[in-house]
Amino acid sequence: MRLSQFHLRTTKETPADAELVSHQLMMRAGMIRKLAAGLYTWSPLGLRVLRKVESVVREEMNAAGAIELLMPTIQPAELWRETGRWEKFGDQLLKITDRKEAQYCYSPTAEEAVTDFARQELNSYKQLPVNYYQIQTKFRDEIRPRFGVMRAREFLMKDAYSFHISDEDLVREYHNMHAAYTRIFTRLGLEFRAVQADSGAIGGDASQEFHVLAESGEDAIAFSTGSDYAANVEAAVAAAPAPRAAATEALRKVDTPTQKTCEDVAALMGIALQRTVKSIAVMTEGGFVLALVRGDHVVNEIKLAKVPGLAGYRLASEAEISQHLGSEPGFLGPLRPREAIRVVADRDVAAMADFVVGANEVGYHLAGVNWGRDLEEPETVADIRNVVEGEAAADGGVIRIGRGIEVGHVFQLGRKYSEAMQFSVLDENGKASVPAMGCYGIGVSRIVAAAIEQNNDANGIIWPVPMAPWTVAVCVINPKNDAQVAQAAADLLAELRAAGVDAVLDDRGLRPGAMFADIELIGIPHRVVVSERGLAAGTYEYRARRASEAENLDKATLLARISA
Amino acid sequence: MRLSQFHLRTTKETPADAELVSHQLMMRAGMIRKLAAGLYTWSPLGLRVLRKVESVVREEMNAAGAIELLMPTIQPAELWRETGRWEKFGDQLLKITDRKEAQYCYSPTAEEAVTDFARQELNSYKQLPVNYYQIQTKFRDEIRPRFGVMRAREFLMKDAYSFHISDEDLVREYHNMHAAYTRIFTRLGLEFRAVQADSGAIGGDASQEFHVLAESGEDAIAFSTGSDYAANVEAAVAAAPAPRAAATEALRKVDTPTQKTCEDVAALMGIALQRTVKSIAVMTEGGFVLALVRGDHVVNEIKLAKVPGLAGYRLASEAEISQHLGSEPGFLGPLRPREAIRVVADRDVAAMADFVVGANEVGYHLAGVNWGRDLEEPETVADIRNVVEGEAAADGGVIRIGRGIEVGHVFQLGRKYSEAMQFSVLDENGKASVPAMGCYGIGVSRIVAAAIEQNNDANGIIWPVPMAPWTVAVCVINPKNDAQVAQAAADLLAELRAAGVDAVLDDRGLRPGAMFADIELIGIPHRVVVSERGLAAGTYEYRARRASEAENLDKATLLARISA
Repeated sequence: MRLSQFHLRTTKETPADAELVSHQLMMRAGMIRKLAAGLYTWSPLGLRVLRKVESVVREEMNAAGAIELLMPTIQPAELWRETGRWEKFGDQLLKITDRKEAQYCYSPTAEEAVTDFARQELNSYKQLPVNYYQIQTKFRDEIRPRFGVMRAREFLMKDAYSFHISDEDLVREYHNMHAAYTRIFTRLGLEFRAVQADSGAIGGDASQEFHVLAESGEDAIAFSTGSDYAANVEAAVAAAPAPRAAATEALRKVDTPTQKTCEDVAALMGIALQRTVKSIAVMTEGGFVLALVRGDHVVNEIKLAKVPGLAGYRLASEAEISQHLGSEPGFLGPLRPREAIRVVADRDVAAMADFVVGANEVGYHLAGVNWGRDLEEPETVADIRNVVEGEAAADGGVIRIGRGIEVGHVFQLGRKYSEAMQFSVLDENGKASVPAMGCYGIGVSRIVAAAIEQNNDANGIIWPVPMAPWTVAVCVINPKNDAQVAQAAADLLAELRAAGVDAVLDDRGLRPGAMFADIELIGIPHRVVVSERGLAAGTYEYRARRASEAENLDKATLLARISA
Repeated sequence: MRLSQFHLRTTKETPADAELVSHQLMMRAGMIRKLAAGLYTWSPLGLRVLRKVESVVREEMNAAGAIELLMPTIQPAELWRETGRWEKFGDQLLKITDRKEAQYCYSPTAEEAVTDFARQELNSYKQLPVNYYQIQTKFRDEIRPRFGVMRAREFLMKDAYSFHISDEDLVREYHNMHAAYTRIFTRLGLEFRAVQADSGAIGGDASQEFHVLAESGEDAIAFSTGSDYAANVEAAVAAAPAPRAAATEALRKVDTPTQKTCEDVAALMGIALQRTVKSIAVMTEGGFVLALVRGDHVVNEIKLAKVPGLAGYRLASEAEISQHLGSEPGFLGPLRPREAIRVVADRDVAAMADFVVGANEVGYHLAGVNWGRDLEEPETVADIRNVVEGEAAADGGVIRIGRGIEVGHVFQLGRKYSEAMQFSVLDENGKASVPAMGCYGIGVSRIVAAAIEQNNDANGIIWPVPMAPWTVAVCVINPKNDAQVAQAAADLLAELRAAGVDAVLDDRGLRPGAMFADIELIGIPHRVVVSERGLAAGTYEYRARRASEAENLDKATLLARISA
């Protein structure tokens, strides 16, 4: 490929509406052009990157045994009514009326369409398991499309749907897809984590999101330095605390006239915040409950709601607090309530000794409190707090909190769609059986933007090799004036291509500064300059995109460096 | 690939709504499944064929210097209003209103979107010429979608658009694309013709359609056995007639009391129909005109309308005929009109001698009529008739009339879109210049159906190798019961794949009859059977899809036969 025969148009200006660096750089590199809100044309340069991502996804899906098909983007309302999603999906579903007044939508996802296909095609357990996938344009009518292709309305997605005779087989395929996704993002050269999303009542393993790590990510995720463990901050779990130490202090009452927070109490007493306990009073169907977390911790509402009996809890009113504890917020604690109460202690609180809590008496706290001695062991011990950056992870590593961009998800759907659409196959005993389903998505176009968020510098994009529009740019100084240099560059290009390296020749005849700026902006991993002076010395000027300096290398060293 | 790991589902039933054999066979082979009217899911089998066509199209477009990009399927109404097509395109344009009440359409073609891209990207003649293409889903809201993917509403199309600083350069690229299309359809193994469509006032070379020849084609096309000349029947031109013979008969009046047609007159007189002349009386802006074609020919309204002065002509009324000729239909002719008239003679009529025409007197014809002697030479001589199967073509061959399925077109658009959208670049002199445009379409999904229309038999599809889902099917008899046979088949598969042959293993364990029926139905070009008996004899049973008999071949011969 010669750039003079290609269409490359970079700009120095950053569009005013581009907030994210990936959006800015994709516009400046000329990868995308806006057609309308949330609608982008992928230029020849952008499309090269998009197709490389698509190829890796396709290869790994095929290798994992999934089978590609292609469903229409326009889908009839009747199908979506079968599952109730015609109404429930909300305004992101682009609804369309055709010339005959029939209703359709532009597919944002294809559970209905694939289940319709499956119920036409599959009638026996012998045909299962099967995993169908497509790489197809999708549409979501975002209320506020922005961030370029990161949250476009029209986008390219790989969506896969598997069908199984048993739950166990669904779990097997779920792990198979998890492994395939890990290979995909690893091959793409991205730093990523498979994140345990909060998955409600289904169980923690039924859903995971794949996030590309980047500071600009919308989601806070916690991950461990000790393994590939990662979770949404809301779902992350730290290491269990060390066993409780023995009591060393006597229980005593402390004057805290205006100290209503753990921070204030700890400051007044001159002790570490970690020695105080925060009491959160809530109302549940079963009555009043006092939840306890360490003073330096934050209660996690999702985890708390998962404690048996606490689903649908709400914060207690001052009247309810007064009724059960005889006190006011700021001075609450598990000791000496007015009525018997249920106590739910975070794991860390249950492991504390000699701690400080509110005295259930305005103006006072209690210090030197110890479980079993001063009050009964807590009725419930559970993980009900957010993890904290730097604390110990369950795998022996340290917990880090970062930000991620969701680029994939794997999900055990169960029988929600197959049941609603009355899809069954005959099992081994000749009985109708509703297949379990899994679904597995990858945001192909979003990966392009996410990769840039993770890999860029002041000069532009830094592509991982597998996603780069070209691996190597061969830059020619003065191609029109120096036939010998032009020929040497063409020879090098041919040699690289023969070695299977995706190389491009920059024969546009730009001045070196402008040429190099373009090549850096568009993120080519390896740059080689062919010049008269270099040829005379038998060398090529080489610079890796991340390197700070260029080097003069002979051809053998150059080729070795590029293929390394 | 092993069929046991693939999704293949053939059926014996032909759906009631499938009229065309391609639709029937695609349904029976399980290549497509209907989601709604004009909307089809491409099954894994169908998609393999679609992708093979797509690949050939992409490779040849790239080789021809076109550059791929990707435009959104959903496009804003404003763009379409700039060219007036928002209203003019008609009901095939699927119009969409989003959640913010903004209007969009699902792109049926992309002249507006690509011109919008070009005017953002191009500002200098130095960036021209350029030819952008995409392979993208399109939508046309057909009033009566039918024939499966032959006339689906959602379909896959390759659309290319070129921009040029001069008309000459547009013509150069038009020929370049014509050559690329010829390579594409040749590589796909299809019988096709590049057909000169009627192109109105632009000139005969400004538009050509590529048709796959098939009896079921919607369009009648004329082509020559002497070259690759082909044209819509309406636009086809035959060889010029031989020079006029000398007069041998005297002019005489013939009694034809009830003979009002050339056929009746010829029968009465006992002469060949070719010696009679048909007179068609029409009114034009310039007044009354008598058009003459040979008695065995049919006047071509499009050609007649192109004769200078005849644009917008209509048939004359009986009153007008009476006024100008003093006669009635059935007895009209160019001699002895009541008022002076203009005569337009077909080329063949102008070359006739001793011919028969109406006498402009009820009940009479004139025979032995000769130009220059009995009446003036015709004012206008032109080709104003339809060609006839079997007559001489201008290139020395014979004209044949067949039917074709349009699968591509190349078109010189000129400046219609670039002017309407105010797109200009600076020319060599620094002046604004509106680029000329060409557009070049290929119906990728339609090619799949057209290929089947052209290549099928009672047993199913017969794929040309480049489009086949697999080139070779290796069929195993009793794979589960005979490990040795299964291993030999797997070895052969590996050997074929190593030789670059796209082969599939039918290891489903079906009975031979059912297995062979499937493999024939889905049109695999080469079938190889691995059996215990064959292995004992050191042979494989081989049958080409079009062959009537199977043969037992040793491996070397087998491999040679497949790669031949």
